[in-house]
Amino acid sequence: MKELQVGLIGCGAIGRDHAQRIQNKLQRAKIVAVTDVIKESAQKVAQLCGCKVAETAEDIIADPKIDAVVVTAWDPAHKELVLECIKHKKFVFCEKPLATEAKGAKEIIKAEMEGGQRLVQVGFMRRYDKGYRQMKELIDAGEIGAPLLVHSAHRNVASGQGVTEDFMITQTCIHEIDLTKWLIQDDYDSVRCIVGRTSKEAPEGLRDPQMVMIRTKSGICIDIEVFLNARFGYDIQCQVVGENGTVNLPDPSYPPIRKEAFKGTSLCMDWSVRFIEAYDVELQEWIDNTLEGITSGPNSWDGYIAALTADLLIQSRDEGGTEIKLNTPERPVFYA
Amino acid sequence: MKELQVGLIGCGAIGRDHAQRIQNKLQRAKIVAVTDVIKESAQKVAQLCGCKVAETAEDIIADPKIDAVVVTAWDPAHKELVLECIKHKKFVFCEKPLATEAKGAKEIIKAEMEGGQRLVQVGFMRRYDKGYRQMKELIDAGEIGAPLLVHSAHRNVASGQGVTEDFMITQTCIHEIDLTKWLIQDDYDSVRCIVGRTSKEAPEGLRDPQMVMIRTKSGICIDIEVFLNARFGYDIQCQVVGENGTVNLPDPSYPPIRKEAFKGTSLCMDWSVRFIEAYDVELQEWIDNTLEGITSGPNSWDGYIAALTADLLIQSRDEGGTEIKLNTPERPVFYA
Amino acid sequence: MKELQVGLIGCGAIGRDHAQRIQNKLQRAKIVAVTDVIKESAQKVAQLCGCKVAETAEDIIADPKIDAVVVTAWDPAHKELVLECIKHKKFVFCEKPLATEAKGAKEIIKAEMEGGQRLVQVGFMRRYDKGYRQMKELIDAGEIGAPLLVHSAHRNVASGQGVTEDFMITQTCIHEIDLTKWLIQDDYDSVRCIVGRTSKEAPEGLRDPQMVMIRTKSGICIDIEVFLNARFGYDIQCQVVGENGTVNLPDPSYPPIRKEAFKGTSLCMDWSVRFIEAYDVELQEWIDNTLEGITSGPNSWDGYIAALTADLLIQSRDEGGTEIKLNTPERPVFYA
Amino acid sequence: MKELQVGLIGCGAIGRDHAQRIQNKLQRAKIVAVTDVIKESAQKVAQLCGCKVAETAEDIIADPKIDAVVVTAWDPAHKELVLECIKHKKFVFCEKPLATEAKGAKEIIKAEMEGGQRLVQVGFMRRYDKGYRQMKELIDAGEIGAPLLVHSAHRNVASGQGVTEDFMITQTCIHEIDLTKWLIQDDYDSVRCIVGRTSKEAPEGLRDPQMVMIRTKSGICIDIEVFLNARFGYDIQCQVVGENGTVNLPDPSYPPIRKEAFKGTSLCMDWSVRFIEAYDVELQEWIDNTLEGITSGPNSWDGYIAALTADLLIQSRDEGGTEIKLNTPERPVFYA
Repeated sequence: MKELQVGLIGCGAIGRDHAQRIQNKLQRAKIVAVTDVIKESAQKVAQLCGCKVAETAEDIIADPKIDAVVVTAWDPAHKELVLECIKHKKFVFCEKPLATEAKGAKEIIKAEMEGGQRLVQVGFMRRYDKGYRQMKELIDAGEIGAPLLVHSAHRNVASGQGVTEDFMITQTCIHEIDLTKWLIQDDYDSVRCIVGRTSKEAPEGLRDPQMVMIRTKSGICIDIEVFLNARFGYDIQCQVVGENGTVNLPDPSYPPIRKEAFKGTSLCMDWSVRFIEAYDVELQEWIDNTLEGITSGPNSWDGYIAALTADLLIQSRDEGGTEIKLNTPERPVFYA
Repeated sequence: MKELQVGLIGCGAIGRDHAQRIQNKLQRAKIVAVTDVIKESAQKVAQLCGCKVAETAEDIIADPKIDAVVVTAWDPAHKELVLECIKHKKFVFCEKPLATEAKGAKEIIKAEMEGGQRLVQVGFMRRYDKGYRQMKELIDAGEIGAPLLVHSAHRNVASGQGVTEDFMITQTCIHEIDLTKWLIQDDYDSVRCIVGRTSKEAPEGLRDPQMVMIRTKSGICIDIEVFLNARFGYDIQCQVVGENGTVNLPDPSYPPIRKEAFKGTSLCMDWSVRFIEAYDVELQEWIDNTLEGITSGPNSWDGYIAALTADLLIQSRDEGGTEIKLNTPERPVFYA
Repeated sequence: MKELQVGLIGCGAIGRDHAQRIQNKLQRAKIVAVTDVIKESAQKVAQLCGCKVAETAEDIIADPKIDAVVVTAWDPAHKELVLECIKHKKFVFCEKPLATEAKGAKEIIKAEMEGGQRLVQVGFMRRYDKGYRQMKELIDAGEIGAPLLVHSAHRNVASGQGVTEDFMITQTCIHEIDLTKWLIQDDYDSVRCIVGRTSKEAPEGLRDPQMVMIRTKSGICIDIEVFLNARFGYDIQCQVVGENGTVNLPDPSYPPIRKEAFKGTSLCMDWSVRFIEAYDVELQEWIDNTLEGITSGPNSWDGYIAALTADLLIQSRDEGGTEIKLNTPERPVFYA
Repeated sequence: MKELQVGLIGCGAIGRDHAQRIQNKLQRAKIVAVTDVIKESAQKVAQLCGCKVAETAEDIIADPKIDAVVVTAWDPAHKELVLECIKHKKFVFCEKPLATEAKGAKEIIKAEMEGGQRLVQVGFMRRYDKGYRQMKELIDAGEIGAPLLVHSAHRNVASGQGVTEDFMITQTCIHEIDLTKWLIQDDYDSVRCIVGRTSKEAPEGLRDPQMVMIRTKSGICIDIEVFLNARFGYDIQCQVVGENGTVNLPDPSYPPIRKEAFKGTSLCMDWSVRFIEAYDVELQEWIDNTLEGITSGPNSWDGYIAALTADLLIQSRDEGGTEIKLNTPERPVFYA
């Protein structure tokens, strides 16, 4: 097999981007069919990609000429679509979240383990960002000694319409939740979410920013500032403090300027371009791995842990910032 | 009065430094007498400064030819010495801590308020550091909007001999405790101290680093990393996140170098030089204010709040990181 | 025409890289035939790309099934191969230099203009580097006002075997010669090359570093440090000083580290990776333009000016640093 | 002698600053008399310092109760005043320039050598700047290997009223002329001054910026951008390129800010504060050395070389940028 035949389910913004990415930018894969509950959306993407429209998601998943599936449907549909892929032993790339609640992710884990083969990759693209990968290489090489603390921040320019406090955790902080675990290779033990002073820039009803604290099983303390209305830039910060040094995520690169009594560089203002190269690398590696019949990225267990951590953070916040234990079993060898 | 006649009590390392600073580097003051329970120490400093040795602390405080007193004795003696100065209506500069426990500081407040005149300045020198002052100016000018969060770190190269976990709070973090309150002009509401994964570089029995979390009355969340064995440098970090931007404490300035596949600058390794200019400014301002008969720096209330916050942080740490309320009355107008 | 059929002449290191780049990484082009005077080299690349080996360069250039040609042969062959492509009206991407001497480039200009169609792109890949493009955007947007001065440096870790002083200009500085002209949109008026103090790290007979000075027709002063044995890194610097500000080429991005009394980031040590993304963009744009029947990159005139400037810099250096005028006619409208 | 009795000649802006500096900020010296051709100016400064007004400069220089003299008169008077001090064997601190032309400085050298004792220090304060001193320490310690090149820039926000092109060299670039020689410990061999494209911000008749090129006896190439109307900041840059690395002058330190899509720090806009600490160090060291009867700062020979280099740079500029040799004798042992 030299070219992966891909079917895509869900033709919204991210679905259209992934479809075009695979069709025009990446190597060794072809979008052969797309579908969406809104037929028009599917037809538009099909036209852009020169592929056919499938009637239903099931038609794509069951099609023997389709090697692998990309799930970019709306969040509540993720669980059932992934379960269907597992039933048909299809490799599936599912955009985050794997399921809207931890228990949905647990069902997927059960089905995948019973099937005896890892098939699912969850779309946590930050693991594919060059800067984070450079950090991880340095940490893994022992450059800063054993990690002891992680300080991070997720700052958006403005919260979109209809954004809720739960969204701050399940859609925003979820990236740091998955990424940090991967970066320092540890499992989470307990979580806290503390609401501070709310910015006057935040819309009514959204207490923004919030501080997330996570402690790992080995005791590493992680703090994450989640701030959706930071105004000055889309600013993603991460510092790992080790026994002998610290390492930071590099900021995106812009030309240094001196002008009007100030020196410095621009900041990224648009979240949609910040990790655009990470999306490319993520899907190209998924294609190449799938062609080899293997999986290597964030798996169902990672999707489950992320969902569980998010659930408990929301509970902690609602209880006024109390510490809540995860009480998860050990990561199964199947997902090691 | 054109030159302040100063008596100094306590001739250890910091006492000797302050005495020489006043005698050789600063303007408008003279060390006229020093004393120490160890006569030899007093004689050495007297020789360096060309001044006389007083028999007792009381001799200095009661001496009508002495305008003001510097207290650099060992910590447990601070409270009584300051009380004696208040009794004699002498201006007094007392090195931190004002008292080893909050209740000692409370006695001082009571005595000073009854005396009807502010006389005490506590040696929190960071408020006189150029970088912190530049930060405060920018914040006060509204450059970043209202402060919402503070992220800070206090990293030492190595914990000295005999350093205990309490020391991490009462001697190390105490600087951030006072400084942050001043920087963001707010009062503290609750504290937490969380012990994380201990560095293998830490001496037996010292759980290092620790994370301090403070919430102010207006809800500002402050986190402070306290790390005494960071090895790579004496690294003091502070970032204030406001509604429209962030501002950081500048690192000490060194020439940028490119060498051996690396570019960057040296880090300060020696805590004793990091704030040396702040000490100069602190004492010069104290001298000039005292000559005018006024006080403007950290006062007894600040010393009390710092001691109380430290006490509660230790309690929180011993209770496993629970949130503890300060329950302090409003700052008296006397100390506004 | 949806996929460009490409023939490649010259299967050395850069030829093999470009062939694989087109075959495995880029879109909308296919390597269909390669050749080399050393048959074995051609066979290796043909195998890597799954394409055929052509007997001669002429076989490739004359082949009606081949849409466009990539010339990566050794430098002295460039001129004749490009002329042959022009004769056959084939689009040709020719690695720098277009010709080993200015007069060879002049022949190409003559032939191309007589043919009435621009067909040639010269491989000055820096124009496709993200950092230089960001600089140019800022300059063109008027962010720093009209350019007045350019300060730049081209530092290599070590000069390769057999590198001569002429190489310092014709192979190293040649990049800045083309790039700067493009960046500030001006033509060169005079040049100087000054030999300074030679590093003891330089091999016998190579006076390294050297300083190049160029003045443009509008009077902009450009200085270029050329230093082949800088040891500490592959360090490419460029600052444009404008009437109201300055802008710099950003350094490659690495994670900031604090470690062992130092803070900073790694420097790139390997020239072959520094502009690797620029090569990708360069060839993808060439492919896409060629499919549209147009040219937009560095053209024969640019190749000629670069060669002429290099010739005169060598002459200036040999004359002890005298100023030499270019005396070139205006850029023909054909190459505007 | 424990306190240096100082007389000051010339009560303009710099004279008033130095007088107050010595009186109120520095140690171990007292201004005892001042004078000025404008009596009113002298009276003002005398009042500020609580000292007497002398009738004439000669009265100060000849006064046996005055240990040392500060010359801050207008430039054309410097030479005669310094010669008078030498005649009276008085230590003298003379603001730059030592003389308005090289030949005047030569007279001073002759007189001082005949007197058999070094008495003169010239006010090149940059040698006392912390950043330059840190650079020199790193260079002297061999951190970057032997110096090969120096790139520097002297950028002012705006040229003052009446500033001429000669001023750009004799008053502005003069700082780099003295500083660089000291920094790399080498003597100058030849100079060039090249006029480039003039900024539209420059006043009529002032060709601004200009590029200065100096070659030292060991072949080190120095380039200095002199730009008086840079608008964006008072920006002093210096990079020394050595055999194994580079070192830069650090920029003045300001708090890093993130705001309005930009990150960076303020730039200094006011030349009068940029080197204010250097002035303090300069005069304190002069006081302390003079109390010991020695001299250690920039001496008459340095003042002479600076004046000569400036003269030849102006000549080079007027001749269109030709290279001009200094042809100076070796530095006399007397001034080593």
